[in-house]
Amino acid sequence: MSRADRAARLVADHDFDLLLVSDLYNVRYLSGFTGSNGVCLIGDETRIFITDFRYVERSKSEVSDFDLVRGKQDLLEQVVEVVKDQAGDSASLGFDESHMTVKAHERLSGLMPEGSKLVAAGGLVEQLRAVKDDDELEKMRRAAEIADGLYRWLIEEHGLAGHTEAAVARALTRRAQDDGADEVSFPPIVAAADNGALPHAEPGDFEIPRDALVVIDLGCAVEGYCSDCTRTLATGDVGDEAREAYELVRSAQAAAVAAVAAGAEAKAVDAAARDEIEQAGRGDQFGHGTGHGVGLEVHEAPRIAPTVETLLEAGNVVTIEPGVYVPGEFGIRIEDMVLVTADGADSFTKVPHELITV
Amino acid sequence: MSRADRAARLVADHDFDLLLVSDLYNVRYLSGFTGSNGVCLIGDETRIFITDFRYVERSKSEVSDFDLVRGKQDLLEQVVEVVKDQAGDSASLGFDESHMTVKAHERLSGLMPEGSKLVAAGGLVEQLRAVKDDDELEKMRRAAEIADGLYRWLIEEHGLAGHTEAAVARALTRRAQDDGADEVSFPPIVAAADNGALPHAEPGDFEIPRDALVVIDLGCAVEGYCSDCTRTLATGDVGDEAREAYELVRSAQAAAVAAVAAGAEAKAVDAAARDEIEQAGRGDQFGHGTGHGVGLEVHEAPRIAPTVETLLEAGNVVTIEPGVYVPGEFGIRIEDMVLVTADGADSFTKVPHELITV
Repeated sequence: MSRADRAARLVADHDFDLLLVSDLYNVRYLSGFTGSNGVCLIGDETRIFITDFRYVERSKSEVSDFDLVRGKQDLLEQVVEVVKDQAGDSASLGFDESHMTVKAHERLSGLMPEGSKLVAAGGLVEQLRAVKDDDELEKMRRAAEIADGLYRWLIEEHGLAGHTEAAVARALTRRAQDDGADEVSFPPIVAAADNGALPHAEPGDFEIPRDALVVIDLGCAVEGYCSDCTRTLATGDVGDEAREAYELVRSAQAAAVAAVAAGAEAKAVDAAARDEIEQAGRGDQFGHGTGHGVGLEVHEAPRIAPTVETLLEAGNVVTIEPGVYVPGEFGIRIEDMVLVTADGADSFTKVPHELITV
Repeated sequence: MSRADRAARLVADHDFDLLLVSDLYNVRYLSGFTGSNGVCLIGDETRIFITDFRYVERSKSEVSDFDLVRGKQDLLEQVVEVVKDQAGDSASLGFDESHMTVKAHERLSGLMPEGSKLVAAGGLVEQLRAVKDDDELEKMRRAAEIADGLYRWLIEEHGLAGHTEAAVARALTRRAQDDGADEVSFPPIVAAADNGALPHAEPGDFEIPRDALVVIDLGCAVEGYCSDCTRTLATGDVGDEAREAYELVRSAQAAAVAAVAAGAEAKAVDAAARDEIEQAGRGDQFGHGTGHGVGLEVHEAPRIAPTVETLLEAGNVVTIEPGVYVPGEFGIRIEDMVLVTADGADSFTKVPHELITV
């Protein structure tokens, strides 16, 4: 069944006639369109893609499973024409409240015919996107392999100490492209020593010292699909406390990966890592969730965090990335990107988990 | 007067007590904050910046003119606490309808006290941002100079014919960083021959041929501020029609630059270019506006297009970029980024306008 057909099946389960898909990741997922202005309208018998003149040619080669309609640069007028044509003046139209601005919503409301209705319907396409098909898995596997190669290159050839964080981040970005990625899936994080303890460090213009831990968070994109991997490397003797904390994170990460399987609750996977870290007395040094889905976006459904009751499904691809952050001292995070299978997890990221000294 | 004070003066002219600034470019402009989660609240006596724990440290070094408040990752609860504290339960709060999603707006409505009011107030900070101060102009001048250097390097050293469009785009991106830009301000457009006629061409994996026109649209960013410049270069003898069209665009572009001055209507500047192109019988080959403001974003206020009645102000920085696009044949665009002055325009982009053969 095509993705559009699966979306239509979801629409049929809801109380609106047509679904307006306006988020560009969702549009790309359903239609294949990679431009910056396009929407899909989906209903029982409706598969319509609307773009403006700039993207008509590109759409012809990219978009399948949809009829192509050309609108003005502001596509909403054309959207309403199609809605009236397909579902009449009393149509109800689902829209994505998490992506549509208040202004666009007001304009759409103003254009819709008397007696029609707008219904908040965000998250439906994201629900489909959370379960990957073989084509998507193949791209994500390639993206992860390229990133693995970057770690190998960094460890075996490039090195860390003596380079600035920013220079390492830049070198990784360039080599990702040279190695066949479209690009990195986000600007790499390279955070040494106490900088590694800042949850959102930006690579700085100072040299990475010897005898420090360095958090490297890195992903590649292949045909739009992302990978995401973190390793914490050492540049020498990091001392007993850091080594002990490293082994704690390594063990907690392995425990969470071991908890992954179709049917597992997201919060149980989180707890598998968090409990170990809490029992070691470092619970307050682990201030973020254990993981998140990855796909066309580097953060997407499902989330893996303490209060999330979602059940993992076979075909989800999620990160497992607990960490320990000691302000003013060091940070440690180990992250794999794994495919959820019927009875476990298949990791796409293969860099070893032992503390590697570079 | 600080930017925050100027924003507060605008708030005083409107019928709400406080302005919630949530767009990150606007937040950066007012406060200096460069992270990904922060908002400002501005009123007569109120200068409050709210971020979450991840950015508290960064805020301390970046944010001036505001009191720092720490919220949860979803900042809206903290926003409402501050609003109640500063303006009471019957507060009216301006928000930006062009950037706030329907979902965030509903959540904010639900949190606001009974008797309070949300007022659509988008565009106020953008109005301030449209007039640059000396510090901003200095960064934009440097961004433009680096881009100028990239054109020189491309023309004198790197060359075009025989390279793929994608390889040229990538080489320009890397060299921008090597030459001191934070990054390119957008992925460079390198569009040869008939690809140059596609208004939104992506650099392709095919070699740029001899005897073709190549549209190169390129900008750099320095400390967040963008530049934007386009030149159309030749890789040999492009033939009489292309040369003639090139001279038409060159003349139309010069006419529009000559029409720029404080007090000029944006649509009059557009008409200065468009009239020449129309009189040459190529009006339907120029399908976009003549220009746009540049600053923290590569597209911002003011727009320069046929129906825009905005008067240009001294301190605006705008592009002037008419073009002619002949489908299946070639495209031509010449773009400068100019500062609007009391009596004219001061161009930041200095690459010559004559047709250069590479």
